[in-house]
Amino acid sequence: MNKGKIYLIPNMISDSDIDTAIPRDVISVVQGIHHFIVEDVRTARRYLRKIGYLQNFDTEVEFFILNKHTDLMEIIGFLAPALASKDMGLISESGVPCVADPGNLIVELAHQYDIQVVPLVGPSSIILSLMASGFNGQNFAFVGYLPIDDKEKSRKLKDLENKILHEDQTQIFIETPYRNQKLFQFITKVCSEKTMLCVACNINASDEFIKSKSIENWKKSKLDINKKNTIFLLYK
Amino acid sequence: MNKGKIYLIPNMISDSDIDTAIPRDVISVVQGIHHFIVEDVRTARRYLRKIGYLQNFDTEVEFFILNKHTDLMEIIGFLAPALASKDMGLISESGVPCVADPGNLIVELAHQYDIQVVPLVGPSSIILSLMASGFNGQNFAFVGYLPIDDKEKSRKLKDLENKILHEDQTQIFIETPYRNQKLFQFITKVCSEKTMLCVACNINASDEFIKSKSIENWKKSKLDINKKNTIFLLYK
Repeated sequence: MNKGKIYLIPNMISDSDIDTAIPRDVISVVQGIHHFIVEDVRTARRYLRKIGYLQNFDTEVEFFILNKHTDLMEIIGFLAPALASKDMGLISESGVPCVADPGNLIVELAHQYDIQVVPLVGPSSIILSLMASGFNGQNFAFVGYLPIDDKEKSRKLKDLENKILHEDQTQIFIETPYRNQKLFQFITKVCSEKTMLCVACNINASDEFIKSKSIENWKKSKLDINKKNTIFLLYK
Repeated sequence: MNKGKIYLIPNMISDSDIDTAIPRDVISVVQGIHHFIVEDVRTARRYLRKIGYLQNFDTEVEFFILNKHTDLMEIIGFLAPALASKDMGLISESGVPCVADPGNLIVELAHQYDIQVVPLVGPSSIILSLMASGFNGQNFAFVGYLPIDDKEKSRKLKDLENKILHEDQTQIFIETPYRNQKLFQFITKVCSEKTMLCVACNINASDEFIKSKSIENWKKSKLDINKKNTIFLLYK
């Protein structure tokens, strides 16, 4: 018996129109899937309806919940439909699955069980911000969240500046939206005046804002990114 | 006078159908643009026609060529249409512009001239391979090409393995297609048996092949990636 495939299904990163971010074939692939691994059932249902999914959620669809509370032992059971030759979908809360979220645990298992994984094209705020930053896209790193403790955060930023200078590598990171403004101020205080900072805010939305300046010039500007989804990029 | 915007226009990464990789709105944005910055005029024209661009190339469209032979001083002139309030498009030969190509030089200049840069969603083989690898997507680096010299390449691979172990960071790199097979053999020779290697081949094409295994298990397998577009990913 052939195994089913696991499709990695992109989600939106803004409330703009589907056609700004999701290729049409993603929509048709989704129609054939009845088993989804998701972070949150309610938002997954809403997204599936938004892109035109037609199945009855109560009688025809099974959801498996993968989030930080999920027991690792439980995850193995999630792959049962694929092992029984059914195609499955993995959907993130935002953007493409397995990037800046723990979806890779499912994919890691899928490789062990020799289940084919099919990544579908969609929006990644990391890649979109890198494209629009003007920074080096031939060598870059995404390092997730910086440490919360100020001393450690300061040390980390110095470490990232070091990699920019000595490895010519763009450094990308994120923060919880309500801490964005504080992080921005911290960066301008700790980093060298010559270091370049790109602030990429509400990407793919109507109020998208992406701006690269030296720390020296950011110090002279006003910026309100409080509670807005933001990606930070540093380069020389 | 308002300045024009620079749209970063994704290209295909395989010869599959447009709707597998390009959101519909990209196609409608392109229709309104008459000034394109491209790596190669012939392939850019072919791509624009493929996605349904209707303007007359000989009388209505201006192309600026940005590749490794382009003089940096010349690039400033490329922005003239945007400064004269015309929207422009930057198109890569493959995938999204400014990632794994030198398009970021234009975007860097655009920020200096306060020209708005709009990144459009499309396929990135780096992100698609990361999604499908099962490796850490919360901390990863793309380092471009490895050194050609065997001694330096070996040292670089050891350095990448070090970052995997001590920074928990997935390491992603590429090679010229005709050297893929040799690089694969080199990796299996130099890297630790426990290191995980993902080989992602012809992404988004009908013969897409993506497989993650330990070096120990790759040594027991046969693999033919000669002249196929391939992304290599290493993790623990």
